[in-house]
Amino acid sequence: MQQQISVITLGVADLARSRRFYTAGFGWAPVFENDEIVFYQMNGLMLGTWLQSALEDDQRRPGLTRPGAFALAHNVPSQGDVAPLIETLAAAGGKVLRPAEAPPHGGFRGYVADPDDHAWEIAWNPAWPIDDQGHVTFGV
Amino acid sequence: MQQQISVITLGVADLARSRRFYTAGFGWAPVFENDEIVFYQMNGLMLGTWLQSALEDDQRRPGLTRPGAFALAHNVPSQGDVAPLIETLAAAGGKVLRPAEAPPHGGFRGYVADPDDHAWEIAWNPAWPIDDQGHVTFGV
Repeated sequence: MQQQISVITLGVADLARSRRFYTAGFGWAPVFENDEIVFYQMNGLMLGTWLQSALEDDQRRPGLTRPGAFALAHNVPSQGDVAPLIETLAAAGGKVLRPAEAPPHGGFRGYVADPDDHAWEIAWNPAWPIDDQGHVTFGV
Repeated sequence: MQQQISVITLGVADLARSRRFYTAGFGWAPVFENDEIVFYQMNGLMLGTWLQSALEDDQRRPGLTRPGAFALAHNVPSQGDVAPLIETLAAAGGKVLRPAEAPPHGGFRGYVADPDDHAWEIAWNPAWPIDDQGHVTFGV
């Protein structure tokens, strides 16, 4: 079976606020949007930001909580890109959880929460190759 | 900036239980594992399952909750693949949240929670092409 994730959908409280974080902070462009969801075409999968009530209805599970026990990561090309992106994300409505620094396992990274408390690790990880289309390969 | 997600990390309470769900249920093979994390090479990104306490330490945010306000999706090649995979995932320790059926927006899908309550939508979506390497493209 394909080792494949087609979509990551984040539940959001305010679609415009979330959209501002992803467009002004990361600089990403939506591929589709309506009044309850925004989709971004990512590296071989979709990122969706969907009103939390609709997401709860869809999975038939009310009462989803934030911050959830997960994190997303975005890798940048060089160590010097980490701290500026974290600053830009904070200016676009994010909250710095952990400033940029070197972790024990190598590389360089920090964490920012999006306006709905979803955690993003912003990382430079020279061991993991990223191709021109953003496809990331495990490396050690 | 690349529209790129390098890693999705799920916080888990029991690494062996989680590993069984992903290997026996989805049939996925780890690319790396130690006593606190398992990584799976996905379609241009990594899926990590990490002890929740370690994930909380890493993002400097204790008290992450489950089920969080998000969902992951795995798309299958045909409508007939949806229900059998949901059954296999349930047998591997998942919990069916919503049985396979046709949603208003087309296609066919159901939801399963993994053993740590993280939601997976199992979907057939003929509008979204998937290439041989599992890269998914938005379509309408």
